Amino acid sequence: MHGEIITTGTELLTGQVADANAGYAARRLHQSCLKLTSITILGDGGPLLGETLQRAVGRSRFVIVTGGLGPTDDDLTVAAAAEALGLRLFEDPALLARIRRCLGERGLPWRERYTRLALLPQGATVLDPGGAACGFSLKCGDAWLFFLPGVPREMRLLFDAYVLPALVAAAGEGGCLVERTLRFPGMPELRLQEVVSHLSPRFPDVQVGFYPDFPETRLTLTLAGGDREALEHRLREFLAALRCQLDDPHLGTEDAPLEALVGGLLRTGRLTLAVAESCSGGFICHRVTNVPGSSDYFMGGVVTYSNRAKQDLLRVPWEILEVAGAVSPETARAMAQGVRALFHADLGLAATGIAGPTGGSAAKPVGTVHLGLARPGGVETESHLFHGGREQIKALTAQTALHWLYRELAYAQDLSRH
Amino acid sequence: MHGEIITTGTELLTGQVADANAGYAARRLHQSCLKLTSITILGDGGPLLGETLQRAVGRSRFVIVTGGLGPTDDDLTVAAAAEALGLRLFEDPALLARIRRCLGERGLPWRERYTRLALLPQGATVLDPGGAACGFSLKCGDAWLFFLPGVPREMRLLFDAYVLPALVAAAGEGGCLVERTLRFPGMPELRLQEVVSHLSPRFPDVQVGFYPDFPETRLTLTLAGGDREALEHRLREFLAALRCQLDDPHLGTEDAPLEALVGGLLRTGRLTLAVAESCSGGFICHRVTNVPGSSDYFMGGVVTYSNRAKQDLLRVPWEILEVAGAVSPETARAMAQGVRALFHADLGLAATGIAGPTGGSAAKPVGTVHLGLARPGGVETESHLFHGGREQIKALTAQTALHWLYRELAYAQDLSRH
Repeated sequence: MHGEIITTGTELLTGQVADANAGYAARRLHQSCLKLTSITILGDGGPLLGETLQRAVGRSRFVIVTGGLGPTDDDLTVAAAAEALGLRLFEDPALLARIRRCLGERGLPWRERYTRLALLPQGATVLDPGGAACGFSLKCGDAWLFFLPGVPREMRLLFDAYVLPALVAAAGEGGCLVERTLRFPGMPELRLQEVVSHLSPRFPDVQVGFYPDFPETRLTLTLAGGDREALEHRLREFLAALRCQLDDPHLGTEDAPLEALVGGLLRTGRLTLAVAESCSGGFICHRVTNVPGSSDYFMGGVVTYSNRAKQDLLRVPWEILEVAGAVSPETARAMAQGVRALFHADLGLAATGIAGPTGGSAAKPVGTVHLGLARPGGVETESHLFHGGREQIKALTAQTALHWLYRELAYAQDLSRH
Repeated sequence: MHGEIITTGTELLTGQVADANAGYAARRLHQSCLKLTSITILGDGGPLLGETLQRAVGRSRFVIVTGGLGPTDDDLTVAAAAEALGLRLFEDPALLARIRRCLGERGLPWRERYTRLALLPQGATVLDPGGAACGFSLKCGDAWLFFLPGVPREMRLLFDAYVLPALVAAAGEGGCLVERTLRFPGMPELRLQEVVSHLSPRFPDVQVGFYPDFPETRLTLTLAGGDREALEHRLREFLAALRCQLDDPHLGTEDAPLEALVGGLLRTGRLTLAVAESCSGGFICHRVTNVPGSSDYFMGGVVTYSNRAKQDLLRVPWEILEVAGAVSPETARAMAQGVRALFHADLGLAATGIAGPTGGSAAKPVGTVHLGLARPGGVETESHLFHGGREQIKALTAQTALHWLYRELAYAQDLSRH
């Protein structure tokens, strides 16, 4: 059972609007084990829509068309579809009455051009969600056609209420699908591929996808078959084997944002956090506070762009700033200790570096970043050289700092368990 | 001169990844008056890619294909294209040497499967941006074909450096297009439509598009014709008429991020800024520091989640926190004054509120946000009630605070000019 999607709208071809319908339908079809072979984005109406529809009907079991069902001059989908499929258009009196009623309820005046909203190709069945825009379905040879409005909210309503249930029923008891996404912060795609390639011969049934999602690499594992429990079991086997291959058992965090994982570990460990940022400019604080309930463990943060603020607020000694410089492991160390003391927190996380595009030198090029992590037992630093533009270096700094914190917390929790 | 885009990748058809390449290319082509007739999204390789390519070459003057150029097993585009177009594959020795050199520079080991990265169809020209992934171009009958990597950053680099200039040159002196996008922070789409509808009869030549882009509404104005100067003149007339219709001459900021506009005004006015955040959690600081050179005017910021930090760092009086509460105009006022003093800045911007999902009450529901702005002349506050999830409320807080600061700075500059 495979099919395709055709979305229409000139604004999609000029790039003024990003398509939101095809991606939504694709995701929902995939989750229901229904295979999609292509998505075609076309302008409003025109011969290209007719040709594409004819081809789709000839090769696919289902075709989902979105857009061009409204009352304005650029809504041409119904006429183009009827012509391409050799079907007459007729006026549906029930649909016309419904449109008149809806307009009346909203206090909108009747316009002659609204009659075209009730024109349907012969054999069409109205999909009426009640109180919102309608679509229609049509059987054409072996293919099921579904025509849906282009407004994402309206499209999704009809897709979920009519299209997906009809397709799932038509496909019958197919298989099921088990899927898991893992995020690898800061691991290059090539290295991850290297690791996974060792496992592939033992797991030919696990379909693996790699998706760089800056600054992480995402790994998607998909298993399809008849028995959900058996699939889940195989997935667990694969994950165990993958963790064996990786040097670091905490690499490959689940598909939750790093800040949520960090938050969970802080909460479990009853620990509080404070953050001092220079080059990342508040982005670490922003990510930490994106997590609902973060006020339970996040004491606060400072963004200290100037040396004066580093001295006044964080008590970074003048000598360190003068001798080692603001971008140095020594400053990162002092910032971490300083922010931990300032906010009376258990942990102090600090980042100082050069986000660019200016401010770099031969000794300290743009992308040089030093991180500090202060704990009751002491303080450690890490140094990195990142590549990219200003926003990328900020993002990499935040990601790397949070990932370091995550690993430290996870190890500490492992230790406390033994 | 019209063409089409074909993007490949199974992850696009399963909805696991949203296509970012076709939309980008579509936008850039439209801005250069190059017409796009369709976008087709297909899986990796396979006969459908071959068929689609053959059809595209027969009907289009340019075809842009993205994805499937990498070294892994699911990178099948080159082989599928060569077969469909009846071209032999050959190994490009210069490209192979380049790949070996790149791997060496990054300390990655050579693998036999990387040789396929140097396989190209007969007649192909390598598009080499230096230091990043390559693509290639190919002339096939009347059509120009461009094959680009699927990673958005790499695709955009090559598209801007090679594809667009080549197509613009090939199209020659066509018509021209003048386009302007304005952002309306916090103005509902319906109100903006209402305002613009008064102007439409006088400006039938101005094509208007509305695009909600949370938390802003974007208005796109497009004029096409033969004479760029005449188009620019009409656009200025439309903008003047629009500004007359709006209550606020500073509504409708140009299409640059608000933080860049604020930065420009701070720089011109020789003013410095400090920021105190509670509910926005560092997001205002993050946006301000996204602007290159912001260290010239941004003194720093604090994220004070706890009452203790508000007292210790910002000198918010205990009585205010006790009587009015941490989420109150009084606290916003004291935070703005406190952060201005702490960082010795000209301006202090503060936000305190309830981002949710918990922490709200009947008197202070989730989304309650108070802003404070301290200046040499005094301090003012603004109160808002935002709707949405936690991240939306954080984003609306930052957007509204920056927009307030922008208007204040713009008015001050207007005044100083008179």
